[in-house]
Amino acid sequence: MSPFIAEAVGTAILLILGDGVVANVILTRTKGFNGGLISITIGWCMAVFVGVYVSAAASGAHLNPAVTIALAYAGKFDWALVPQYLAAQMIGAMTGAFLVWVAYKQHFDETPDPDVKLGVFCTAPAKRHSMHNFITEFIGTFVFMFAVLSISKASSSLGSLDALPVALVVLAIGLSLGGPTGYAINPARDLGPRIMHFLLPIKNKRDSDWSYSWIPVVAPIAGAMAAVLLYNALV
Amino acid sequence: MSPFIAEAVGTAILLILGDGVVANVILTRTKGFNGGLISITIGWCMAVFVGVYVSAAASGAHLNPAVTIALAYAGKFDWALVPQYLAAQMIGAMTGAFLVWVAYKQHFDETPDPDVKLGVFCTAPAKRHSMHNFITEFIGTFVFMFAVLSISKASSSLGSLDALPVALVVLAIGLSLGGPTGYAINPARDLGPRIMHFLLPIKNKRDSDWSYSWIPVVAPIAGAMAAVLLYNALV
Amino acid sequence: MSPFIAEAVGTAILLILGDGVVANVILTRTKGFNGGLISITIGWCMAVFVGVYVSAAASGAHLNPAVTIALAYAGKFDWALVPQYLAAQMIGAMTGAFLVWVAYKQHFDETPDPDVKLGVFCTAPAKRHSMHNFITEFIGTFVFMFAVLSISKASSSLGSLDALPVALVVLAIGLSLGGPTGYAINPARDLGPRIMHFLLPIKNKRDSDWSYSWIPVVAPIAGAMAAVLLYNALV
Amino acid sequence: MSPFIAEAVGTAILLILGDGVVANVILTRTKGFNGGLISITIGWCMAVFVGVYVSAAASGAHLNPAVTIALAYAGKFDWALVPQYLAAQMIGAMTGAFLVWVAYKQHFDETPDPDVKLGVFCTAPAKRHSMHNFITEFIGTFVFMFAVLSISKASSSLGSLDALPVALVVLAIGLSLGGPTGYAINPARDLGPRIMHFLLPIKNKRDSDWSYSWIPVVAPIAGAMAAVLLYNALV
Repeated sequence: MSPFIAEAVGTAILLILGDGVVANVILTRTKGFNGGLISITIGWCMAVFVGVYVSAAASGAHLNPAVTIALAYAGKFDWALVPQYLAAQMIGAMTGAFLVWVAYKQHFDETPDPDVKLGVFCTAPAKRHSMHNFITEFIGTFVFMFAVLSISKASSSLGSLDALPVALVVLAIGLSLGGPTGYAINPARDLGPRIMHFLLPIKNKRDSDWSYSWIPVVAPIAGAMAAVLLYNALV
Repeated sequence: MSPFIAEAVGTAILLILGDGVVANVILTRTKGFNGGLISITIGWCMAVFVGVYVSAAASGAHLNPAVTIALAYAGKFDWALVPQYLAAQMIGAMTGAFLVWVAYKQHFDETPDPDVKLGVFCTAPAKRHSMHNFITEFIGTFVFMFAVLSISKASSSLGSLDALPVALVVLAIGLSLGGPTGYAINPARDLGPRIMHFLLPIKNKRDSDWSYSWIPVVAPIAGAMAAVLLYNALV
Repeated sequence: MSPFIAEAVGTAILLILGDGVVANVILTRTKGFNGGLISITIGWCMAVFVGVYVSAAASGAHLNPAVTIALAYAGKFDWALVPQYLAAQMIGAMTGAFLVWVAYKQHFDETPDPDVKLGVFCTAPAKRHSMHNFITEFIGTFVFMFAVLSISKASSSLGSLDALPVALVVLAIGLSLGGPTGYAINPARDLGPRIMHFLLPIKNKRDSDWSYSWIPVVAPIAGAMAAVLLYNALV
Repeated sequence: MSPFIAEAVGTAILLILGDGVVANVILTRTKGFNGGLISITIGWCMAVFVGVYVSAAASGAHLNPAVTIALAYAGKFDWALVPQYLAAQMIGAMTGAFLVWVAYKQHFDETPDPDVKLGVFCTAPAKRHSMHNFITEFIGTFVFMFAVLSISKASSSLGSLDALPVALVVLAIGLSLGGPTGYAINPARDLGPRIMHFLLPIKNKRDSDWSYSWIPVVAPIAGAMAAVLLYNALV
């Protein structure tokens, strides 16, 4: 697999499984309806596990623009490769979200609340406040990136044996720091599906909440860059 | 163990444990009644783990006709072995479902709803619609097979060290893509127990829902074949 | 550590943690009250993990008379060592149950229902019927022992690296076959704590349900022996 | 990383994630509200996993004054290093608790019950009784330390491969022995955040429950020392 394909496929799997578990837990009349925090967080954990496993050998399994940009910023990843990585991640995330919509089509149709439908695609804060929401996403991605650097020994790529530890880090972030904003911690994970929500002919949908959309893009990038800086200062 | 015995034993264990957790969560007055999505999905995950662990060394742990057929279709597995693998998987699945009925006999007798009793044996869609249900099972098995090919490095057999990653993939599918149809993703897992439901003298049972039965057989085979094709095209 | 000490310590830890999670979930006004099936089964899984990890190097981590007897019956373990293994397992199980009572003393005192208090110590069937309960415990231990033989490659001892797979097997049994009888699958796990329930000055306790007590002793031994026979016939 | 930095960073991550999951589950209007025992215990398990992983190579990942003191008492760790380890652990724990407050600021503000806010920072017994609470924390830390000594083969430091087993031990303790007192089992985990609760300008806060604060400090140290003594006597 080429790195471009691997990033696209890995991020598609990340979103099929990640947005998928949200669909299962919050859409009307699914088998997993009301499955709770533990189902959501373990579902995303497994989404990371499978996505990283599938793509690690070919692309190093970034699957996250914040990771790619922070590694380039730190001089560990070639800036020339950044555009294709980001493009692959966005294409993958949009594809994954599209497939969740296909798989859950009947349940999207039956769900009455437009906020719930949007919530399958992208994150929204429990309490809306730009500064607080930004800080929470910053802290979450900071901890995520710091842990990933430890696991990868500060290399710019993950191997398939890193899939489980990295997935467990995302489980940790979800359980512990996901309470206020739903832990985007990844611009592609949030923006890609949000664009799909905008484009798709979803029955009875609301707007795609663009006013919030910059936070799960900018805060994760800032948090990941801060983590790389601190990690390099300490190690 | 011969490959035939290993496939039969592995699939029997898969179904004892897999249908077993469903029995525990949905039959009347069990200790696990109402255990929820997380119990069902972790139960099936562990069923895969134990089934693969027990059979990997001798048969490569297919335990799933969709896997066997797709690998043969891709030229990675000898067509001459396919009939005995499928036969072993079906015999194993029927045996496993039979033992769940034996272990939970009193709870089958006490459960009033015939749909619930059938639900222990085989899958049923949350919303019945041939096309949508087919698509969901296709996508689920596609993701499953693509991930399994990555884990097995495109070989036609799994080793015992692959038992945990493959089980985690099934956990992922269950949490994320099981919402609409209950993730059969395996023709033997669905058809074998359905036949047992038909044959067994279950108190107050309903028909075995034959009109739906082709979907969890055909869609997984199609999805697995598509995954093999895409995997070979990309890698 | 001597094998005797290791079996006693390992089984004590198994019961501290195993009966402990039951106490946490069912006794009055604990932090884990009403934690549900997933907490109970993961708690017992972790109890097995820690107990096996601690004792594997010194005794091979049987922690279960059914395992010890079945291995001796199969000629894989010296009958001369069986008495000391069984004695250590019973002493360990009683010690573990005693420590759970000590740790949860105030909650035992506050819990009104004597059946609940007994339920912390030992198993009771959801529906009482000697034959059905026997069969369920037989099947559960049969699957358990068959899987353990696969994991240990039919050796008579487990290593510390086997701790996680074996623990996951117990998670599987609990989720899938624990519904009717609460999966004793281990005579020491049930009889040791039952004796402690009889001996301890528990406030407002009921009798120790001796009429049921033979089932979680005899059925696991029979199931484990049958598994060894089948395993040896197949492999 | 220097050992001092590693202990501070590791303990900060332990508390960000550990206190974080409590915040997510008990503060008002979070996404994880009412997530239950399994979320809390898996959250702390993952907090230990990430904290140990990040710090193991540089400091041996004590992250707990009870561990440091017990190892020094047993002659396995240099007393001269104890003060800096304890200082790093306290600084880390306070920093972690501070960041949880920052990330969940809006939810602290909205939560009406001052006991709940304190409960994010530090432990409180389900039923207050100095002797019983002391005994429960003693037993919990005793089992924890005994298991950790087995995992580390009685060495004074953990490696990154020990992160998962040690985290699973903490999952076991939480599920099984956390019911009466909330399993502090670590003086820094309890006292550091308690001091932060005292210092921070938390809206509508109560006192920091100093009368209880000595138990989760003294009992874990005593329990860990007893475990080291018993381990050395047996092995």
